[in-house]
Amino acid sequence: MTSRSSVSHGERAKCHPNALARRLFAIAETKQTNIAVSADLTTTRELLSIAEALGPYIAVFKTHIDIISDFTSDTTDQLQRVAEKHNFLIFEDRKYIDIGNTVQKQYRGGALRIYDWAHIINASVLAGEGIIDALSRTIENGEERDRGILILAEMTSKGSLATGEYTKASVEIARKHKEHVIGFVATRQLSADSRSDEAVPGEDFVIFTTGISISSKGDALGQQYQSPASAMERGADFLIVGRGIYSGSDPVASAKAYRDAGWEAYLSRLEGST
Amino acid sequence: MTSRSSVSHGERAKCHPNALARRLFAIAETKQTNIAVSADLTTTRELLSIAEALGPYIAVFKTHIDIISDFTSDTTDQLQRVAEKHNFLIFEDRKYIDIGNTVQKQYRGGALRIYDWAHIINASVLAGEGIIDALSRTIENGEERDRGILILAEMTSKGSLATGEYTKASVEIARKHKEHVIGFVATRQLSADSRSDEAVPGEDFVIFTTGISISSKGDALGQQYQSPASAMERGADFLIVGRGIYSGSDPVASAKAYRDAGWEAYLSRLEGST
Repeated sequence: MTSRSSVSHGERAKCHPNALARRLFAIAETKQTNIAVSADLTTTRELLSIAEALGPYIAVFKTHIDIISDFTSDTTDQLQRVAEKHNFLIFEDRKYIDIGNTVQKQYRGGALRIYDWAHIINASVLAGEGIIDALSRTIENGEERDRGILILAEMTSKGSLATGEYTKASVEIARKHKEHVIGFVATRQLSADSRSDEAVPGEDFVIFTTGISISSKGDALGQQYQSPASAMERGADFLIVGRGIYSGSDPVASAKAYRDAGWEAYLSRLEGST
Repeated sequence: MTSRSSVSHGERAKCHPNALARRLFAIAETKQTNIAVSADLTTTRELLSIAEALGPYIAVFKTHIDIISDFTSDTTDQLQRVAEKHNFLIFEDRKYIDIGNTVQKQYRGGALRIYDWAHIINASVLAGEGIIDALSRTIENGEERDRGILILAEMTSKGSLATGEYTKASVEIARKHKEHVIGFVATRQLSADSRSDEAVPGEDFVIFTTGISISSKGDALGQQYQSPASAMERGADFLIVGRGIYSGSDPVASAKAYRDAGWEAYLSRLEGST
């Protein structure tokens, strides 16, 4: 894979073949932020409140919609309105992992109706290529034009098995489904992670990196963290930050601090590559 | 792992260290069935109707609750009543895959409240051991006593990466969490799949095998099938059957046919081992 670390968000916003990725980079450039907040709140009120408060400082709002205890369609209707107001994308971190036939139903149907409101979803390729094929077909056949998939190519938890052949397969499957796979959840650029030697000029997968914290090294349940600067150096494009932002006493101040640290690291990377 | 293929369900119902597994084997023995129906229906009415119709012939009712378009808590309240009436267990095929902190919220909370009604859940170990640790703690600290975890050790879809080291890690993590991990979703006994040589006498992991069909070889989205007899020979204890039962014109007749084929294969295995 050609690493796009040295190209500016503004340039990628112009050149990316995928419309949703162009929109994502344009948002990052306009708002000068590469922060995706991981909003692991458990009530509609808290979710909307944090979206409204942090909206100006983030590019992406990442949800686990299935932890919202009082979820109704109104939850996501309102979230969509906040997203439009503050110009961010919604990423439902569903981590689809089932066979194709099942994920199509999970994505489009059910009470949560994720397809209707989430711009970005993600999926593991543990089940093989069929899952990405199925989700791509759902997007292809759907009425929304701004929908994209991230492949869960790596995980940041202790003892993760999303490594080696699994990560390589993620890259290969992404290449086959470039129309709808916009990138990866990974800890770094995956340039060297392919079982084929084929160079693919101009391809531009977006890297979302989890486990970002300015201060914490880990939690009691196996999560491990790295700093914004370290992640950006390794090739991250967007930094997913959760408890580091919203669990403190002043989430807005924390969001600004992460936005500034992330943007500065991004600018340093650009400068370093010129 | 000591293979338990040669031991009868009745014997395992008496000896298994886990209360939920004892109950599962007792149900199988009483109803003479090792069928788990995969109920991939998308409305509450269809779900309850198929549970009521097939209840007498199955040991386990497997759900994807997030594909039910009109889900409310009444959906699962009613399903629990049908399960009691017909004496089967409910298995929510959620395939948890996130970090520990997140899966605890997904399991206990949210609109779907899976912990409240599902006897059995499953999880991938892609994220590492933390996920099983977190789900085990949730069960340990909860009020329900009949809750258990299956580790997704293999998948039957084309190009599955749930093989090799992933499957071995599944076995090792299961061994560390035997109080709450009752077994595996796998295509076979996993006796040889361990990175340690340590024999563990008396351990008894239950094998649930997916992709079972009397007639079909696969679907257009990568699913692959094997017969009940083939699966039982390889070490399956419970056979997960989906479209083979409910997509035909007479689901009850199909369920009976699968129950008979599965039970006969089970008896053949017992006889073959004496």
